[in-house]
Amino acid sequence: MKKYTNPPKQQWAELMQRPVMNFDEIVPLVQNILDKVKNEGDSALKYYAEKFDNIKLNELRVQSSEFNEALEQIDIDLKDAIKQAAANIEHFHSIQLPKTIKTETTPGVSCWQKALPIQRVGLYIPGGTAPLFSTVLMLAIPARIAQCQQVVLCTPPDKNGKIHPAILYVAKLTGVTEVYKTGGAQAIAAMAYGTESVPKVDKIFGPGNQYVTTAKQLVMGKSVAIDMPAGPSEVMVIVDKNTPAKYAASDLLSQAEHGADSQVILLSDSPEKLDEIEKETLAQLEKLPRKEFAAKSLANSRLISFTSKKEAVEFMNGYAPEHLILAVEKPEEWSEHVTQAGSVFMGYYTPESAGDYASGTNHTLPTNGWANAYSGVNMDSFLKKITFQQISKEGLKNLGPAIEKMAAAEQLDAHKNAVSVRLEDL
Amino acid sequence: MKKYTNPPKQQWAELMQRPVMNFDEIVPLVQNILDKVKNEGDSALKYYAEKFDNIKLNELRVQSSEFNEALEQIDIDLKDAIKQAAANIEHFHSIQLPKTIKTETTPGVSCWQKALPIQRVGLYIPGGTAPLFSTVLMLAIPARIAQCQQVVLCTPPDKNGKIHPAILYVAKLTGVTEVYKTGGAQAIAAMAYGTESVPKVDKIFGPGNQYVTTAKQLVMGKSVAIDMPAGPSEVMVIVDKNTPAKYAASDLLSQAEHGADSQVILLSDSPEKLDEIEKETLAQLEKLPRKEFAAKSLANSRLISFTSKKEAVEFMNGYAPEHLILAVEKPEEWSEHVTQAGSVFMGYYTPESAGDYASGTNHTLPTNGWANAYSGVNMDSFLKKITFQQISKEGLKNLGPAIEKMAAAEQLDAHKNAVSVRLEDL
Repeated sequence: MKKYTNPPKQQWAELMQRPVMNFDEIVPLVQNILDKVKNEGDSALKYYAEKFDNIKLNELRVQSSEFNEALEQIDIDLKDAIKQAAANIEHFHSIQLPKTIKTETTPGVSCWQKALPIQRVGLYIPGGTAPLFSTVLMLAIPARIAQCQQVVLCTPPDKNGKIHPAILYVAKLTGVTEVYKTGGAQAIAAMAYGTESVPKVDKIFGPGNQYVTTAKQLVMGKSVAIDMPAGPSEVMVIVDKNTPAKYAASDLLSQAEHGADSQVILLSDSPEKLDEIEKETLAQLEKLPRKEFAAKSLANSRLISFTSKKEAVEFMNGYAPEHLILAVEKPEEWSEHVTQAGSVFMGYYTPESAGDYASGTNHTLPTNGWANAYSGVNMDSFLKKITFQQISKEGLKNLGPAIEKMAAAEQLDAHKNAVSVRLEDL
Repeated sequence: MKKYTNPPKQQWAELMQRPVMNFDEIVPLVQNILDKVKNEGDSALKYYAEKFDNIKLNELRVQSSEFNEALEQIDIDLKDAIKQAAANIEHFHSIQLPKTIKTETTPGVSCWQKALPIQRVGLYIPGGTAPLFSTVLMLAIPARIAQCQQVVLCTPPDKNGKIHPAILYVAKLTGVTEVYKTGGAQAIAAMAYGTESVPKVDKIFGPGNQYVTTAKQLVMGKSVAIDMPAGPSEVMVIVDKNTPAKYAASDLLSQAEHGADSQVILLSDSPEKLDEIEKETLAQLEKLPRKEFAAKSLANSRLISFTSKKEAVEFMNGYAPEHLILAVEKPEEWSEHVTQAGSVFMGYYTPESAGDYASGTNHTLPTNGWANAYSGVNMDSFLKKITFQQISKEGLKNLGPAIEKMAAAEQLDAHKNAVSVRLEDL
């Protein structure tokens, strides 16, 4: 772990540097996959299932019998835990549902804004040994609250052609309308263009590896919208002198275990605290099953002490962390200064994993400094806000002359005329 | 103008087709401009000002003396019209400002969502003969309400190195913090990367030609966020038997005058009404100064009659128009069925130009069918919504076991451990 004491400002850019993600070299490969799926549909998806997932599929869509099997394979304690988490996520997202906003801006000129669901959304859930069913909760619950008509989920099958039962259980629980056995760039292509089996969607959500990320980057703003740009996960932990080192260490490790490119930053007001937390982190690391991942990430971690709180705050916002843990006694003294972060965890008893799973906030958050311009997934992500206006005769008499004047100044005579032909009847 | 009566569904895709925008061939040219500005900064901007705008600039930033001059050049009636529009836009956007949403999802588990301004925003305003000062109103007013710290505006200078006074007047009025004389792809590059003079921003807004659009597409999700994908402007007008033909014709023409690729669609319940409106449109066209633009657009316009209202509604939503004018006697009988549109104009006395300039709604709207997933510019466009959570000891006792169970099932032991090390102290 790398330690720094009061680093000078000219060093900050380097300390805030994210892992470089340059996927340029896989672009042609991914573009080929996108084109093949666009042109050949289901048969291309089956071709890639055989090639990448080692399974010959007859049917891409998960059948009801498979959902029923999955239901029986999940133990009751896990079901209860999932239901508790689902209820919290439902609660926190439901209260975000926007109301119609209506006003009269000028007598006779009514304007309103109404939120309507995006009709068809696609959720991508990665495969692999650890089934990310928590991401299904985080994406499918707000889609259901928004009343999206079609919620499509794609995830790669295992080598027996099966989807992990926890994913199917949660998909059923949260109202996903259909699940398809396809992964990687080909799944993104399927949802972006549609195939015989997989419907085209309006917006794609969810995390993925470099192929998925590249595919999302290539289709976004062309055939489909996406949730947000992707990057490796990251945490910034801020501690004070009383923060139990074992809490801070466990938070750093829960980020580090995601993978070698996960980023871990700790801020403190004393170099001694950094030493204490480093020691504890390395001790806890030894006991972790995924310690080889975590060790690589920790090797690039940065533990920084700032004597000046003002500088620490500036560094915190400049980094714009995806996850910000304020593991301090008075977290509100820090949170009031937060201007850029994905999600903020306050106090000694609020680990990031609470938000990752069960507190109710969303865990799909902006990485890579994108917290400067993007929100994490929230109800807005599944809605469009449409404006409406209705003008009475009286209203047009009040507002029309201003419109005519402005349109004329912009040399748009037909715009002016649309008002004039009406005003001459009034 | 092309007319259709009850077109069969297999023809709909063709009737909903947007003008093809393929800018692939200018990508290398635009990429060169981006690279040159990234590497050479101000000197590249001055180079392109000389090359494309025919002006040798010493200073890129507009000086206070230039704002003062502009103030004197705008006549009082236009100032009053602009102020009336600004007040309405301010009113309608202010009421959209989201409040902090807070709840307790589980006893001891508090979660909230707070909106904070995007700190640095960049507005691009095209140059040319018609100064689009109305777009300055539409972008700078919500930026000011959001309290964005830095509002940068770039617009190309004329051949005398001047910016149109109406643009400078509105920029000053709406609190734009700085204006730079640079246009095209080079302006987008300046705001995406920053130069010695022009600050890097977090998000770029605004319309532009194919070079600007391509530049925005190339930088988005890489170094900066953008407002939305671009496409030619479009309107769909729905009429009934009593709609005065001159109103509908004036609405079609106010869209058509934007340019040859503007799209104009009219829906009616009778073929006779289409004939009547066509006749009136061609008569009004003759009197327009920009009739050569409008005529080209009209040549591709589609006037369609549907006997079935159900089919008309399906066509309306399938097209997902940027502007939807419900020029009918009972517009609420249509508006209640709207699921995809940018902005909706209701009744005989609500022309699109009201929303283009002065009613209060925003005129930066999703084109090209993107109303299926994007909202027009609104207060959300200038904000990030950050989530916060604070868990008490009691809260962690209530929620911790569910988190441990789920983390274990995802094989993320360090995530589980972050809860366990805390629970063992409680």
